[in-house]
Amino acid sequence: MIEFPAIPPIDAAARRAAEARQNALTKPAQSLGRLEELAAALAGMKADPFPHVSRKAVIVMAADHGVALEGVSAYPAEVTRQMVLNFLSGGAAINVLARQAGADVCVVDIGVAADFDATLPGLLRRKVARGTRNMAAGPAMTRSQAKAAIACGMEVLADVAAQGVDVIGTGDMGIGNTTPSSAIAAVLTGLPVAAVTGRGTGIDDEALAHKVRIIEQALAVNRPDPADALDVLAKVGGLEIAGLAGVMIAAASRRIPVVVDGFISTAAALIAAGLLPDVRSYLIASHQSVEIGHRAMHKHLGLTPLLDLEMRLGEGTGAALAFSLLEAACRILREMATFDEAGVSGRDGT
Amino acid sequence: MIEFPAIPPIDAAARRAAEARQNALTKPAQSLGRLEELAAALAGMKADPFPHVSRKAVIVMAADHGVALEGVSAYPAEVTRQMVLNFLSGGAAINVLARQAGADVCVVDIGVAADFDATLPGLLRRKVARGTRNMAAGPAMTRSQAKAAIACGMEVLADVAAQGVDVIGTGDMGIGNTTPSSAIAAVLTGLPVAAVTGRGTGIDDEALAHKVRIIEQALAVNRPDPADALDVLAKVGGLEIAGLAGVMIAAASRRIPVVVDGFISTAAALIAAGLLPDVRSYLIASHQSVEIGHRAMHKHLGLTPLLDLEMRLGEGTGAALAFSLLEAACRILREMATFDEAGVSGRDGT
Repeated sequence: MIEFPAIPPIDAAARRAAEARQNALTKPAQSLGRLEELAAALAGMKADPFPHVSRKAVIVMAADHGVALEGVSAYPAEVTRQMVLNFLSGGAAINVLARQAGADVCVVDIGVAADFDATLPGLLRRKVARGTRNMAAGPAMTRSQAKAAIACGMEVLADVAAQGVDVIGTGDMGIGNTTPSSAIAAVLTGLPVAAVTGRGTGIDDEALAHKVRIIEQALAVNRPDPADALDVLAKVGGLEIAGLAGVMIAAASRRIPVVVDGFISTAAALIAAGLLPDVRSYLIASHQSVEIGHRAMHKHLGLTPLLDLEMRLGEGTGAALAFSLLEAACRILREMATFDEAGVSGRDGT
Repeated sequence: MIEFPAIPPIDAAARRAAEARQNALTKPAQSLGRLEELAAALAGMKADPFPHVSRKAVIVMAADHGVALEGVSAYPAEVTRQMVLNFLSGGAAINVLARQAGADVCVVDIGVAADFDATLPGLLRRKVARGTRNMAAGPAMTRSQAKAAIACGMEVLADVAAQGVDVIGTGDMGIGNTTPSSAIAAVLTGLPVAAVTGRGTGIDDEALAHKVRIIEQALAVNRPDPADALDVLAKVGGLEIAGLAGVMIAAASRRIPVVVDGFISTAAALIAAGLLPDVRSYLIASHQSVEIGHRAMHKHLGLTPLLDLEMRLGEGTGAALAFSLLEAACRILREMATFDEAGVSGRDGT
């Protein structure tokens, strides 16, 4: 078994101190709504009444999926490798949005089914396997591969943390990876496959019906145990999903808040929370994706997403956009004047 | 009558060019959802297929309201003046969020019922009147005061535009100003007063029922003509609402997109669109406020807000937060690689 780290409890005193500060600032109480909740949540996670989120990184895990052979995606599997190269040259959406947010992008090959030039700069080479096996025919991974991929995510987070980081965003790349994510959602929320399976990169009605059948077949063939998140991950998950679950666990153990991106990252969050429920206290849901299963996954995790911009791209793009809201929440807490400091009257002239 | 400027039509060619560019970028078509719509909308407004929103300003109009005497707010009227001083010393929420967004804050005394020290730096002194009169007893303003306040907003925008600006946000400060905003919403959407009247800065049930009665009384006393937006503005509006309507009209005439803040700014947008319907094409709704009438106002204007963070502060805070989404939309368009540039395969391997 992997040795999981302890997850520290949320610091209630820091959280209360942040809430008290909010109420003294020159605005009606709670008038900044979710920004105030977010600031208090970050204070509790970081055990700091005036938390900072200056140093940000998005960890993008890339892997291939054996199930892509079944024609579940609108794009060919070679796009996984091509998009990794695009990430490294700075031309993908996540690069643009991370630049805007002042966040580093950390690209990890945890399971791409292709080789990268050994001289390629910037890529973290942590390949656990050359993609998963086709889950419609048997387990996507062995249990030990799933463990190795989780451990890899934990190590990557440790390295990023060692360089200094205040908040982490998660991202993914893997043609076909909404398919294992929907499978995980179905098993762990208990909902029917059709209720948590969407169009991914943009498949048509016929392909969607086929995708649902493939996932149903994978569940029938593998019979993953909903009470054993590692079993679910190994049988119907993906290497990048495992790696992101490891990132989340290791971040939570260090009091580093995790901004969870879209559908695939949230599937990883389901796995992480299945392995260690306390991880949930360190998760922030960045956005509501177009993928129909996403809402049920958030509900299962007890998370309410910050943004709803009808996005469905992954890569960490939702997380990168949400960073600016975290930044705003923290700045409000630190930079606004109190009623006393500004000489502004309170309610009823007090 | 005020001479209103011509509002240029949206540039359909620039809009189409932006859409075509989006579809060539390395992501599934439309996968960035509302960011893509936003980029195309900005391209059309600015007649530029690669629009910029680098130079930003929030214009915050401050004024007092005679109706505050009726006890419609949780805060005393002196807070309007105090908060203007807070804006000028940089301690309010709008200062913090504008700093983060890289936006200037332009504070205008268009009708505060108090005097400011003549040496106070940074304040734009454009006082049209020392607050409005109590609309529950008669017209809030004369028709010529309303016109003067609109003209003032147009001049302020002209000055800001002369210094160079790519996008404008609107903001307000005025104790009691959700009351005229709800009155405007009721008249122009045709909904009952109770359906568009909320708790403002945080009044209790009893005060809310009183606020509804005061607005109903104001409408009965003044009988504003829904077909004459200037009549509505003068009788049950406010000086800052008039000024913001002027800002919107003048911005639209110059192809400057306007990011509309919350409830009060949206009331100004209803007036601006009532005066010149084409202004709507240049409006972007920043956020859905907690105020219950806000949704109906957006619907009336045909706008869908970008954010829903349960905020109810005003000042331009929602507009300042939304700036980062506009920035993201424009950067995606300019900075992402195309499929061809990045050597990434398209759908079905093309």
